Amino acid sequence: MKENISDKVINRLTLYHSILTDYIEKNIEYISSPQIAELLHIDNTQVRKDIAHLNYKGKCKVGYRVDNLKKLIEKTLRFKTVKNAFIVGAGNLGMALAKYDNFEAYGFNISALFDNAKDKIGMKINNKEVFNVDELQNLAKKSNVTIAILTVPRKYAQQVTDFLVKSGIKYIWNFTPCVLNVPSDIQVWNENLIGNFLQFTVNHGISKKA
Amino acid sequence: MKENISDKVINRLTLYHSILTDYIEKNIEYISSPQIAELLHIDNTQVRKDIAHLNYKGKCKVGYRVDNLKKLIEKTLRFKTVKNAFIVGAGNLGMALAKYDNFEAYGFNISALFDNAKDKIGMKINNKEVFNVDELQNLAKKSNVTIAILTVPRKYAQQVTDFLVKSGIKYIWNFTPCVLNVPSDIQVWNENLIGNFLQFTVNHGISKKA
Repeated sequence: MKENISDKVINRLTLYHSILTDYIEKNIEYISSPQIAELLHIDNTQVRKDIAHLNYKGKCKVGYRVDNLKKLIEKTLRFKTVKNAFIVGAGNLGMALAKYDNFEAYGFNISALFDNAKDKIGMKINNKEVFNVDELQNLAKKSNVTIAILTVPRKYAQQVTDFLVKSGIKYIWNFTPCVLNVPSDIQVWNENLIGNFLQFTVNHGISKKA
Repeated sequence: MKENISDKVINRLTLYHSILTDYIEKNIEYISSPQIAELLHIDNTQVRKDIAHLNYKGKCKVGYRVDNLKKLIEKTLRFKTVKNAFIVGAGNLGMALAKYDNFEAYGFNISALFDNAKDKIGMKINNKEVFNVDELQNLAKKSNVTIAILTVPRKYAQQVTDFLVKSGIKYIWNFTPCVLNVPSDIQVWNENLIGNFLQFTVNHGISKKA
C-alpha cells in the first residue's frame, strides 16, 4: 500500500466498494476488473491499476474474491477508524447527512447536530440529538470532536466558522457555497456542489444540449 | 479559452467565483492572486495559471477587477446557459438541493421534484412542485428535461434509474451511495460524498488524529 493515494483513486475505490457491497447482497463470490469497468464506464486497465494499490491480484479467469477485495479497500481507506463529527446547521441538508445511508460503515460517526432554532433543539434525527449551538464548545471538548460538517445558510457561513475555530474545531467539511476564511492550521474541505455539477455540464456537453 | 478545462480547474474557478461574489457584496473593486491563494490555502502560481485559462491579465500591483473576473468565469463555465433538471426523491436531500443557495445563478434550474409518497405530492419547495413520479416521463418530454438529480434511498436507486432511462433522461447526477447500471449512452455523475470525505480523512491525516 502506498502512503499517498491520489484523490481520484480514493474516489474510484469507494465506488468499487459500493459495487462489492451490492455483490455481497446478491451472494456473488467473484468479480472481474472488466465487470467493474463496465459498470462505471471506465477503462479496464484503470481498474486493475487502482486495485494494484491494494496489493491484491485476482486469479486468472476467475477474478477477485468479492469479500477479500472489499476488506482490502476498507483497510486501505481506514473505514474501521472511527471519525467523530458534528453537523452544524440542522436544516434539510444537515438532516439529510445525519440520515445518510451507510455513513457509519465508512467509520464516520455523526455524534450530534447543532442549530440555533429553538424548535429544532432537542429533536432527534436518526438517534442523534440536536443541541443549541452554544453548547458546541463544551461538547467538542468533552467528546474530543475536531471535525465539523458545515450546513448553515450562506449568509451565516463565515460567522459560524469563526465560532467553530474558537471552539477547537480543526477540520471543516464545508457544504456552503462560500469560501471560508480560516487560520492556516484549520483544514477546510469544500464540498463545492456547484463545482462538481459544472464539471459535469462543461466537460460532458450538457450545456450545449440542454 | 481552451476547449477542455480540467475538472480541478473548474472546481477552483467556482471557488474563485464565490470569493468574487463576496467581494462584490463588500464593494471591493480589485483582487490580487495572492489574496485568492491565501483564502484557499493554495499556491499563488496555481491561481495565476487558472486565471490564464480565462485570457485575463491583471494589472501590476492592482490585481484583477472583481466584476470583470467574475463575468469571465461565468462565461467560461457557461453560467448563462440554462440547464433544466428534475430532482427525483423529495426527501431531506432532495429538498435541500431544491433550496440550495444560488443554484440558479449558475444556470441551474430545478423545474420540478418527484416522489411516490402521497403526502409529498403537490407540495411546493422553493416554488417548485413535487409531482407523482408516474408523471415524470410526460413532463420530461413536455419540458425537454434530460437531467435528473437522484436523491432516493439506496434500496430504490437502481429501480428508479431504470425508470429514468426509460423516461428519456440522459444525464443522472447521482447522490445515492450506489453504482448505477445504465446503458452506455446515459451519463452518470457520481456525487460520491463518501469518496469526497475519505479523500479528506485519508490524505489529510484525520484518521490518525481523530
